[in-house]
Parts: sequence; structure tokens; C-alpha cells
Amino acid sequence: MNTTPLYRQLANHYLDAIRSGTLKTGERFPSIRLMMEKHAVSLSTAVQVCRELEDYGVLEARPRSGNYIRQPDKPQKTSPIALVQPLDTGVYVGIHEQVSSVLKASQRALIKVNFASAYCAPELYPLKTLQDNMVKSLRHDSCLYGVAGSTNGNSALRSLLARRALTTKANLTAERIVITNGATEAINLALRAVTQPGDTVAVESPTFYGLLQILESLNLRVLEVPASAHTGINLNALQLLLQGPEKIKAMIVIPNLQNPLGSIMPDANKARLVKLCAEHDTVLIEDDTYGDLVDTEQPLSTLKHWDRSDNVIYCASLNKTLAPGMRLGWISAGRWHERVEMLKHTQSRGCEALSQLAVSAFMKTPSYERYLRRLRKTLTQQRQQMSEAITRHFPIGTSVTHPQGGTLLWVELPRRHSSMAFFHEALKVGIQISPGDIFSNAKRFNHFVRIGCGAPYSPKIDEAVQTLGRILKNQG
Amino acid sequence: MNTTPLYRQLANHYLDAIRSGTLKTGERFPSIRLMMEKHAVSLSTAVQVCRELEDYGVLEARPRSGNYIRQPDKPQKTSPIALVQPLDTGVYVGIHEQVSSVLKASQRALIKVNFASAYCAPELYPLKTLQDNMVKSLRHDSCLYGVAGSTNGNSALRSLLARRALTTKANLTAERIVITNGATEAINLALRAVTQPGDTVAVESPTFYGLLQILESLNLRVLEVPASAHTGINLNALQLLLQGPEKIKAMIVIPNLQNPLGSIMPDANKARLVKLCAEHDTVLIEDDTYGDLVDTEQPLSTLKHWDRSDNVIYCASLNKTLAPGMRLGWISAGRWHERVEMLKHTQSRGCEALSQLAVSAFMKTPSYERYLRRLRKTLTQQRQQMSEAITRHFPIGTSVTHPQGGTLLWVELPRRHSSMAFFHEALKVGIQISPGDIFSNAKRFNHFVRIGCGAPYSPKIDEAVQTLGRILKNQG
Repeated sequence: MNTTPLYRQLANHYLDAIRSGTLKTGERFPSIRLMMEKHAVSLSTAVQVCRELEDYGVLEARPRSGNYIRQPDKPQKTSPIALVQPLDTGVYVGIHEQVSSVLKASQRALIKVNFASAYCAPELYPLKTLQDNMVKSLRHDSCLYGVAGSTNGNSALRSLLARRALTTKANLTAERIVITNGATEAINLALRAVTQPGDTVAVESPTFYGLLQILESLNLRVLEVPASAHTGINLNALQLLLQGPEKIKAMIVIPNLQNPLGSIMPDANKARLVKLCAEHDTVLIEDDTYGDLVDTEQPLSTLKHWDRSDNVIYCASLNKTLAPGMRLGWISAGRWHERVEMLKHTQSRGCEALSQLAVSAFMKTPSYERYLRRLRKTLTQQRQQMSEAITRHFPIGTSVTHPQGGTLLWVELPRRHSSMAFFHEALKVGIQISPGDIFSNAKRFNHFVRIGCGAPYSPKIDEAVQTLGRILKNQG
Repeated sequence: MNTTPLYRQLANHYLDAIRSGTLKTGERFPSIRLMMEKHAVSLSTAVQVCRELEDYGVLEARPRSGNYIRQPDKPQKTSPIALVQPLDTGVYVGIHEQVSSVLKASQRALIKVNFASAYCAPELYPLKTLQDNMVKSLRHDSCLYGVAGSTNGNSALRSLLARRALTTKANLTAERIVITNGATEAINLALRAVTQPGDTVAVESPTFYGLLQILESLNLRVLEVPASAHTGINLNALQLLLQGPEKIKAMIVIPNLQNPLGSIMPDANKARLVKLCAEHDTVLIEDDTYGDLVDTEQPLSTLKHWDRSDNVIYCASLNKTLAPGMRLGWISAGRWHERVEMLKHTQSRGCEALSQLAVSAFMKTPSYERYLRRLRKTLTQQRQQMSEAITRHFPIGTSVTHPQGGTLLWVELPRRHSSMAFFHEALKVGIQISPGDIFSNAKRFNHFVRIGCGAPYSPKIDEAVQTLGRILKNQG
């Protein structure tokens, strides 16, 4: 646990923003009311934050007008707190080849119910708003497609993203953000910036199979570090590996709502992970694609927030939270920014403008946060319903994660079951699931499946879960 | 020169299309009138083509309905013709680092007249049509952004591209085309599919600096092969290199309207290049970005057309011909298709759908070819005007290329001039040009500049050319 009082944490957070220039001298500071809403804090906490900032000499109260930023005085430190964790030395080396065969089999099949997707159902996304915004942009600027976009992307969107990152306590500056074709391209760029083919990169185990594919395609070696559904990556295991003979060039971590575990790292773990990586000169690549789906009043911190030595590359995406058809991710690569910018330019040039304009127009309205709140509530209900159905229909001995957000459940079947056999049986009757095998090169997960619950619960879904249960019972 | 009669060339072309399945059994064959228009051939030639195909047993005439495809009989060979060329042994090894400093300097400057762009002026592009098509798609399908696109891209667009490729005598099948973020991504994928870091790749010299940047970013070694503004790459020089000790893994060539030379390879050279590369197990990567800008009634052949051993990877883009703001390229990688598909999936996933839909809707109308014809005419006039102005205002001893299409002139200044000094002087007065130095790692081109004439000629442009002339006269 972080022992720093909340008001001081928030004050530090704003201090960083002022120092980095995300909040500029002369600019109006958020009102007490807005701060209460944004950070889900009490009136007294919000007031204390302002007092603290006034004490630091960075806030100036103007009568009947509000608080304004003035020149900051001195820097201030946050010290991360160590946490003792149970040791798990089960580490795995290798790259996965099974993924594409699973994806190809799914493509060939006639899918009636898809539990393999990490997306929400289309009806949960603000498609109308986004498409209306696009129409407006197309009507408004008849020369929208007449000029090539900049490599880094739309500057208004980059500013909005930097602003929003403040609520997850990361200090990103708009100038050092690059808009990418999804988090996929962002992670590719991060890896290309800091590794060479043949280098070793650590990932959580289990992890999103897409990451394993990226690593394989870049000819990188993969080292898997055990992770739990409760607190994410096992830091003691990581520490042992970092102290070992094999140089770990980079590490990719999903700190909030890990895919597939749904784990959320406690703040102390985040701080320790960042420190460990910095100490061992291992670049930490953070994938924050799911952060906005955490069902919480108080936004969670990112790894970037704990980064004091510019050793964390922050990657994220909007296509899970806003629209699956939109290839919109971004990367903030700190000291590797120039290299990432160059690689983005040579790899695909700047992204098309339209999606960026549509998202900007939405993101700057209060509807955006309202939409996310609603989405999180809906997903919590869907996870609950799916979890109950699995408990009801799957064999005794099955256990299901209870993540604090998102669309994914990680289901452990009794050991006698093979998730690949389960996958193929289910596919025969038009039900698609993600077998545990593809989330790791270790054989640890061959009795696990990932079940997506992005769609509103329905009789059709219930029937499919029953069918899955029957398949398992016939197998067992 | 190709000595095969035109009607037989066309017949072979259609035979290939039928064999590869691009034209399918039972499908209606283009009418005589359409063939005359498409290939700019006479009535008698078009009729002869149909007779030839009937002789091969692949065409079936149905009364009052037209010709239809039936099962083909036997394959047929084309034999490439060797051509003796003057020898040029000036070859160069190295990768260029100067490009980004030139680009950065340009970004910092206040540009009044931009002669460095290879794009046309926005008003020459069919932006209204494309944007209107987008609005229609957005209105028509309220769930357009609700689902993730396929890795390979929109199938209707891929079919249209395969169809259109027939007029440039390349047989591409829609199933083996992947839509990419511009030709830039296509070339990246091609190189990643067939090379490893450290491998050597040959390019034309001079060549588009963007290619040199891509090669550098992928840690590939570059071997430059001399090229002329008349017939493109020097094949005798290439042959010597291929026979030399250094293994050339791949070669990138722009056969039609090379950038910056504007050269067009004669058919015999294309055939010989393809054969040479195949014989030496060097993968030939063709960049056909400018093919549609060749000012000709009879579309020119691509390298892919001469490819009998599936050794040519075809890359192209629409963003020079249709809209600079559109990131739409494609790749047809033949036997490397599966690998390219995998790399595209892991690098950036499938491209967004909207641009693809808008282009498909435009491409399937007759307006598309009409637009291209008009654009080519306009550019021919602009090149002419620019060429005259350069001749008028630049120092005696300057020579200018006369390419058969496109937006680019390659200007050779008297040897005493330095193109880098010229570039910086011009930038000071807000005129941007591309110095010859960045098109090669050799020092051969430091008295060359590339001048773009994508904008309609105007007094402002004329004044800028005069200013450039004055700068040169002061330097000399």
C-alpha cells in the first residue's frame, strides 16, 4: 500500500504535470468541483490539494476567477515501497507457434457465438457519435484528405490524451506522443526502438497471445514470468530472473486488467516493478489498453506514474474502449521518442486524420467520461452473469477469475481437461473460445480457457454456455 | 522492344488472368468496345484478341449475350528478349543519414512554395467524390466501426485492384492481396518477409530517399545500382553485381516513373531484370506507386507481368494518385503471401475500412479512369511549364529530365553547384526543394535537385523559379 496521503499523491501528480509543461504557467487550474469529480475525492481532499500546491508556490488564487498556474518552485520525490511476495520460480522460455493455427481454424469455422473476442458487442460502443463526428469533419473540411498527415498524429488529440493521462497519474506531454495504428503498432515500435533481433524480452505468463506473435515476428526471445490473477506479475520471480545470467532487454507488462488474468497490480508492486527494471537496465513497456475499463471511482495509477528515470514506454489503444473498427493507439516513448518517431515514419507514415478528429471531438465533451462510466457498469453486470453461468454449467472443480473490470474471464478447468480439445469440440458447434495453450509457451495453461463477455447476456449466450458445459462433461 | 504482336500480348494477358482465376469460368468477358477503350487498341486488334482466345478454347461466344469464359486448354510462354546496354560499373554501398536532417530543417522553416513534394496540389485530387463516398458509407452502415476489419483488407477493393491490374498486364488474385498503410508499409512488409537484418538489398541510384530510410531502419545494407533517366536501372551493372561475391537478397525497383528519375523501363529491360533476379535468387520488389501517372494510351507492363517464377513482390499505393491524406497501399507477395499476412497482422492488424470503401465506390465507376486521364493531361502541362521556366531561369549548363508522366523533374545543375547549399539558401526564402544528396549515399548527385510540379503553374510559382535561378547565379 502507498502510505502517502491521498491529497499529497494528487498534489504530486499535478506538480509533475506543471513541471513537464502539460499544465502551463498562466493556465487555469481545475476547479474544486471538477477535481472532486475527476479523482472521486472528497471536498476536503480537493481543498487540501490546492493548499498543498499553493504552499509549493505553483498555484495562484485570483478572486472570483479561480486558481491559476504560476512558476513552480522546487521538485519533490515519491519513494516506492517494497512488498514481500511468495516466490515462484516456474519460468518459461520460448515462443509460441500454435496461435496462428488456432486463429486460422476459427476463421474457417462458422461461428455462431464468439467468446474468443476481447471486444465489447458493437451496441455498447458510441458508434453513432463517432460516425456523426466523422461526417461533420468530412463536411466541414473539404480538403481533409488533400494533405498528408504528420507522422506524430493530430495535435489536438495528443493534447487531450496527455490531459486525460493526468487522471491516471501519468505525465505525458503531447509533443512526445505518437499516434499509431492501434496498440499493436505502438508495441512493435517500442520493441523495435529498444531491442535487436535475438534479444530477450520478458512477458507475464500467461499473456495475450498477440504479444507472443509480435515477439516472434521480430525474432525476439521470450522469457515468461509467472503472474497471478490477484496482483499480476510475480516480482520475486522477476527479480531472480533479472539477477540471472540472461540479459533481459525489455519487459512488457499490462498492469491494469492484464489479458487474460484481469489482474490489477497494487501501487506498491507497480512502484517496485518500475524500480527493478530501471536498476537492471531493462526497458519497461507498459500496455495500458484496458486501463479505462477498470470499474473504479478512483482511476488507477499506471507504471509510467512511478517512472522516475524515464525507463517506461507507455502504450495504449482506444479500440477496445471506443470502437473495434478504429485503429487508434498511441505511444509515449520518453527518451526513445525520436527513434520511435523515425520508425513510425519509415514503417507506415502518419495515421489518417479522420478517426483522430472524431475521437477528439468526443473526448473533449463530458459525454466521454459518462460513456466510459456506463460501459464499465454494463460490463460489470455482464461479467457477473457470465461468471454465474459458468459456475452453474461447467464441471465441479472449475474456477473463474473475478476481475475488477473489462470483458475477460480466465477459467481454470479441472486438470483432466484439455483446452485444445475443448476448443476444437466447441468450434464444431459454432462456439469460439480461446484455449489457454496459446497464452504461453509453457504447458501450464492447457486446462485454462479465456471467455469473453463483451456481449449483453442473452438466452443464446446462456445456451452456448450450457453447450460448453455439456462438452466438458462428455470429455471428463 | 517486344516483338510479340499486340493482339497476342493482350491475349496472353487475358489467358494468364483466366488461369489464375481472376477471370472465372462462366464469367462474362469484356466487350469489344470495352477492350478498345481499356487497352486503347483498334477494333481489329480487339477482335483478334477474342479470336485468339477462342482458338485457345477459353472463350465461348453466346448469341446476343457476348463472350463468356470457359475452361482453359493449354499454357503458353512468352520469351523475354535480351538487350545490350552500355556498361556502368559505378556502384555504391552505404545507407544515408542525411535525409532526416533535411526533412527536419524543412519542418522548422516557413515554407511559401514547396517544390519538394511528390504529391499533386489538393485541387487536382477527387477529394469531394471520396469524401462524399465516405459520408455515404458512414450513413449507410451505422455499425461500420463496430467490428474489426480483416487483416487483408476489404475484399471488394482487393477484387477491383486485381481487375485493374489486368490493364497493366499483371495477374494478381484478390485473395493474395493485402491492403496496407500506404506503399511504405507494403515495402516494409516485403522486406521483412524476405530479408534478415544485415542482408544486402539493391536499389536504383538515385532512388527515393524514403526507401533508403526504410532500409536503414530495418538494418539492411544498401547496394546502389546506377540508373538512367531513359531506361532506368543499368542491367549490365546489375548483372556484374549479381555475379559478384556479395549475396543480394532482394532488389527494389520502380519500373514506371522512377523516383526521382522519371525513367520508364522498356519491356525488354523489364523482362531481363525479372529473369536476372530469378536466376540469382534475388527477390524483386516492385514499387508501382506511379504507374497510373504514366501519360500513355496503352498502360505499361509491370515487372510482375514478366514474372514466370513467382519471384516478384508487387507493391503499390493510391495516395499519390487519389489523395495524400489516405494511407492506402497494397501488396501482392505471391509465395510469400502467408508470411506477409502474418507480418501485417502482428505489425498493425487490418487497415480501417472507410477509405477502402470510398475508393472501391469510386474505382468501380467509369469516372475513375476518366479522372486519371484528366490528371495525367494536367500533369503533362504542368511539367512542361515548369521545365520551360527552369530552362529560362536556371544557369546555362542546367539539364532537366522529360519524364513521360508524374510530378517530378530531376534537374542536373552545372557541376560547380552544391545542391545542399542550394537547398539551405532556398529554404531561407521559404522555397523548399529536394537536394540530390539525399537520393543516394554516393556523392554523384550533389549537383542535382528534384523539383516537384504537382501544383498548377502560377505567377507565384514562376517567381519562385526565378528566385531559385537567382540563388544559383549568385552561388556560381
